[in-house]
Amino acid sequence: MTKNKKSFSIIFIGAGRVAGHLSRALHDAGHRIIQVISRTEESARSLADVFGCAWGTDIEQLRHDSDLIVFSVRDDALQALIARMDAGETPVVHTGGSIPMRAFEGKARNYGVFYPLQTFSKGRTPDIRKIPMCIEANTPGNEEMLLALARQISDVVLRVDSTQRLTLHLAAIMVNNFGNHLLALAQEILQKDHLPFDLLHPLIEETVAKAFDLGPGKAQTGPAVRNDEIVIKKHLDLLSWSPEIQRVYQVLTESIRHRTAKIK
Amino acid sequence: MTKNKKSFSIIFIGAGRVAGHLSRALHDAGHRIIQVISRTEESARSLADVFGCAWGTDIEQLRHDSDLIVFSVRDDALQALIARMDAGETPVVHTGGSIPMRAFEGKARNYGVFYPLQTFSKGRTPDIRKIPMCIEANTPGNEEMLLALARQISDVVLRVDSTQRLTLHLAAIMVNNFGNHLLALAQEILQKDHLPFDLLHPLIEETVAKAFDLGPGKAQTGPAVRNDEIVIKKHLDLLSWSPEIQRVYQVLTESIRHRTAKIK
Repeated sequence: MTKNKKSFSIIFIGAGRVAGHLSRALHDAGHRIIQVISRTEESARSLADVFGCAWGTDIEQLRHDSDLIVFSVRDDALQALIARMDAGETPVVHTGGSIPMRAFEGKARNYGVFYPLQTFSKGRTPDIRKIPMCIEANTPGNEEMLLALARQISDVVLRVDSTQRLTLHLAAIMVNNFGNHLLALAQEILQKDHLPFDLLHPLIEETVAKAFDLGPGKAQTGPAVRNDEIVIKKHLDLLSWSPEIQRVYQVLTESIRHRTAKIK
Repeated sequence: MTKNKKSFSIIFIGAGRVAGHLSRALHDAGHRIIQVISRTEESARSLADVFGCAWGTDIEQLRHDSDLIVFSVRDDALQALIARMDAGETPVVHTGGSIPMRAFEGKARNYGVFYPLQTFSKGRTPDIRKIPMCIEANTPGNEEMLLALARQISDVVLRVDSTQRLTLHLAAIMVNNFGNHLLALAQEILQKDHLPFDLLHPLIEETVAKAFDLGPGKAQTGPAVRNDEIVIKKHLDLLSWSPEIQRVYQVLTESIRHRTAKIK
C-alpha cells in the first residue's frame, strides 16, 4: 500500500449524497478524484464535472491506475457491483453502515470500510471535520492507510468492526430517521390547529443540547416519566383523528415508563 | 389593569424550574418579585433569596399588594390552590400547557395563561428571548397587559387559545419527551457495544437543522422510507435483547411507511 504517497488517485462508484460529500472532502484535502462511475450518465457526469474527471456508467469501465476505489451505492446494489469488479491490488472500501466488510471477501485483496456517521443531503454541507469516520480494514496496513486518510478530513476517526458499525447504524436510525419522523408528526399535529412548525425549533434545540449535557436519562421530563394519566389521556383524546399517531404516542409513553420503573 | 405602569410587583406560586426561569427573566426586565409561595420552606426560600423577597408555604399567606400572581405548579396541584386563593382584582395566570384557562373561572376576576414553550432545567439557561410565549386572557385588557409583559422578555409572543395550547403542548411532548427518549434508547444501544454516545451529537444536530431547513417530510431518509426490508431485519435481529426497543422500532417504521404511502 502507498502509505507515504501524499496525493491519492481515487475512483468513486456511486454519485449520490454520500459520494458527493466524501469526494469533495477528499478533493479539498489534496487528493485527486480520477473517475466517477454511476448508474446513469446524468449522475456520473454531474459529479465528475466537479473534478473535471472521467466518468462511466458501467463497473467494467473501471480504470486500473487508482490508489483507492470507494463504493458509495445503495446496499442492495453493492453485492452485484463487487461481483463484477476487477480491482486487482487496489484497495477498495464501501461507505455503508449496515454491510459487513466481508462483502469484499474473495473479490478483492485489499479492502475495508469508510463509514461517515452523518445524514447527507444535496444543498446542505455539514461540517465534515466533526463527522465521525468509522474505519475497518482487512489488514493492519490497509487500516493504517484508511485511518490516515480519514484524519485528513475529520477530527473524529475511529476503528469500528462490522458488528459495532451495525450498532452505530441502528443508533443513527433511532435518532435521525425516527427523530425526524417525530418532527414530521409534530408538524402534522400543529398544522391541524394552524400553528407554525417553527415554534418548536428552540425547544428541540434545547432538548438536544440538554440530552448531551446532562445525559438523556437525567434530562427526561413530561407526563410519561411522572405518570400523569390525566395529561396522557388529554393528549390521546386530542389525537383521536389519528389512531396511528396515538399508537406512536402510546408505545413511546410505555417505553419511557418501562425505563423509569427500572431506574427506580 | 395597570397597563402604563412600568414596574410590576409579581408573586410566584411555585418555585420549580419554570418559576425559576420566568421569575428571573421578569426580574431582569425591571419587574419586582415580591413574594414566593411554595410547598416546602426550602424551595420557597431558595427562590425568594434570589430576589431578597418574602416567602411562604401556604396560599393563605398571599400578599394583596401585587400587580400579578403567577401560578407555576404541577397540573394536579393547581386546582386545589386556585380554590383556596383570594386574588381579588389582581390578575392571575398559570404557566401550564395542558390546563385550560377556565380553571380560573369563578375563582378570579382577571385571569389568563402565560405558557413558555420550552423545557427548563436547573443549571441550564436557554435564551429566553427566543422562547415562544403563548398568551391567553379573559378580557382584551388583560390580554394586552400580558402580551406587553411577554414582549419584554421574549421576541416570540403569540395569542393562543386553550385548545391550541394543548395542541402545542402535545407537539412539544412529541419532540421533547419522545425525542429525548429516542436519544436515551440510542445511548443504551451504543453502550452494549462500548461505543460513546457523543458520536451521535453531530448527527442529531444536522437532523434538526435539516428538518427545519427542508421540512421534516422532505428530510426523511433511511430504511423505512425506502422500504429496505433487509436492513430493517438486521436492526430488529440486533435488538433481540430488548423486545421493548424492537416494538418502538417497529411502530415508528410502520408510521414512516404509512406516511410515505400517503404521499406517493
